[in-house]
Amino acid sequence: MLTKNPRVVFAKRPGTGVPVPGEHVVFERSHSIDLDGVPLNGGFLTKTLMLSPEPFMRERMRDLCVASYSTHAVLGEPLVSFGLVVVLRSEKEGINPGDHLYGLTTWEVYTVQPYIEGRAKYNPAAAPDYTFDVDALSLQVVPDPKGAFPWSRYFTVLGAPGLTAFCGFEGCADAKPGETIYISSGASAVGIVVVQLAKAKGLKVIASAGADSKVEYMRSLGADVAFNYKTTSIVEVLKEHGPLDIYWDNVGGETFEAAIEYSRLHARLVMCGSISEYTIAPEARYGIKNTSMIFKKRLRIEGFLVPDLAPRLAPRFYAEMPALVAAGKITAKEHITEGLENGPAALADVLKEGGNEAAGKPIILVATE
Amino acid sequence: MLTKNPRVVFAKRPGTGVPVPGEHVVFERSHSIDLDGVPLNGGFLTKTLMLSPEPFMRERMRDLCVASYSTHAVLGEPLVSFGLVVVLRSEKEGINPGDHLYGLTTWEVYTVQPYIEGRAKYNPAAAPDYTFDVDALSLQVVPDPKGAFPWSRYFTVLGAPGLTAFCGFEGCADAKPGETIYISSGASAVGIVVVQLAKAKGLKVIASAGADSKVEYMRSLGADVAFNYKTTSIVEVLKEHGPLDIYWDNVGGETFEAAIEYSRLHARLVMCGSISEYTIAPEARYGIKNTSMIFKKRLRIEGFLVPDLAPRLAPRFYAEMPALVAAGKITAKEHITEGLENGPAALADVLKEGGNEAAGKPIILVATE
Repeated sequence: MLTKNPRVVFAKRPGTGVPVPGEHVVFERSHSIDLDGVPLNGGFLTKTLMLSPEPFMRERMRDLCVASYSTHAVLGEPLVSFGLVVVLRSEKEGINPGDHLYGLTTWEVYTVQPYIEGRAKYNPAAAPDYTFDVDALSLQVVPDPKGAFPWSRYFTVLGAPGLTAFCGFEGCADAKPGETIYISSGASAVGIVVVQLAKAKGLKVIASAGADSKVEYMRSLGADVAFNYKTTSIVEVLKEHGPLDIYWDNVGGETFEAAIEYSRLHARLVMCGSISEYTIAPEARYGIKNTSMIFKKRLRIEGFLVPDLAPRLAPRFYAEMPALVAAGKITAKEHITEGLENGPAALADVLKEGGNEAAGKPIILVATE
Repeated sequence: MLTKNPRVVFAKRPGTGVPVPGEHVVFERSHSIDLDGVPLNGGFLTKTLMLSPEPFMRERMRDLCVASYSTHAVLGEPLVSFGLVVVLRSEKEGINPGDHLYGLTTWEVYTVQPYIEGRAKYNPAAAPDYTFDVDALSLQVVPDPKGAFPWSRYFTVLGAPGLTAFCGFEGCADAKPGETIYISSGASAVGIVVVQLAKAKGLKVIASAGADSKVEYMRSLGADVAFNYKTTSIVEVLKEHGPLDIYWDNVGGETFEAAIEYSRLHARLVMCGSISEYTIAPEARYGIKNTSMIFKKRLRIEGFLVPDLAPRLAPRFYAEMPALVAAGKITAKEHITEGLENGPAALADVLKEGGNEAAGKPIILVATE
């Protein structure tokens, strides 16, 4: 018996700009699947419960000639992002029906894992050495929180964003109590964890976001200075509340330049993302003119991705963070959109200039168990 | 009996551009000194033998409202740079007539040290925390090489440039045999030492300069790929001979951007100077647009100045380097200009766009003993 298997496919490269729902990223109901009969080939069948639209998905839609840290998304195939799935059938040892898994998965309701046909053609010898094969990253079983926290926390503080924040903060920021940190995109899933880790360490926290609801949320998490960069000048805030010992960069461009300008001697700048630049052409990007300050102030600017630091720091993260979350000492918030059909719009919302309006990590609720 | 005491004074702030001899930087013969009778007030009287025009002198001539890593030069007073002096009279313990000293000194023939009247007014509480009081840095006795090498080596491999190269290379570059390094301004006093340290460690060395004579010189020091950036595209060279594991930045701007573009995963970029930017207005500086590569390639960009690293590394430098130089294993070259009256033009030559033409560290021969 066939069951409808709705999906969201990558239909067309957007060039510059935000991918347009229905044009570049398309919701489809044309596929079906035989849930009982589909061959698993040693893998397992999952049902997608939740998906998160992510900035890195845009980077994968870039033109084929442009190298980056991620392999290219495959045209005609479902999008790939972090997701929470439940196992329906399995031929794989260690994976059992009813298991919940979190990790990279495809934007469709039912998936035979691993999803082979949609994998990017990746030849390590031909790609730059800094490129990750995103499609090769796998799902991992996550424990049932049994009501201690919602499943959606695996998308924020207990998932990739939380691990990213933990690795960058513990591995690169070199934070000391009493220091001042500025966190751009401080209401993002990564940002809110950095805000809380920094407060727990006794830092003064400055945080910015692009909506008043997010400013309110950052303040509720303990940020000492929270502001809306659309209505308040970043430079004025840093002039008044800086100088900075640490800058956590999620946005790049002008904000990065302002942070360099208001950094203290020997400040550390942790480069985690560059959301202001993903949808614009390289030549249209903001040009940073104060880089001579790097030697004048003896700054250390360090880029990282989780896989670089996880071997050293993930064990601590998994040992410490779930208990802190269960005890309510570290919190998070998810903003739920219902229905995979609303996925393309949710992705566009994350990528649009200035970001989305609602506080909380955007999550698409695909199905219930 | 009075003796003429020629000097070069800082007469007028240049705003943007290279200081013009006779206008911003002026040679004068109006001062005299009584060599036998001038009060020493517990200090000592020196005769200047050699001086070096240096890019950092330009930074000190900036407008008073602009903060930087150095205190401002004082209008109406002699310029200050690295110099080699010999002691004529002394009231200071440990300093004796006939001693040679190297360090920061004033651009005049005779000086009562320390030179108090020309000191920048420096209030540490009012200045940014990354500002050095240049005028407070002192002269140090240097041993007589007794013919093993010329005195002028104290301006290159055995002086501030050599120590700068050693501190940055040993402290920030994290170099491993077989890696590739690109050194901009590779024929500068700092650059040539980095070239030689890198070759000694088994690195592949790419080095650029702005004159064919300098390219020839870098090649003679062992650079594997040496080129004139005025006639050869930096991007083309890095595309062919990169990617880079290490970039040593002496120039900033477009060159820095190209180095980021052709860096390998986890490359280290050591920020030592920004010669392309000292004489232009902040808004006219080149804007770097590829800073998102810092996180994509997980780069580490680190600025340093010698005083940050010297406490840890200077003892090794002074223990190892003189012997290497005496044995001819590390070499250097100085380009001598005779006469303090030619000092202003020599300084302008160092600062002009594209730099001076001659290979070798520019030195002004002020007097003989």
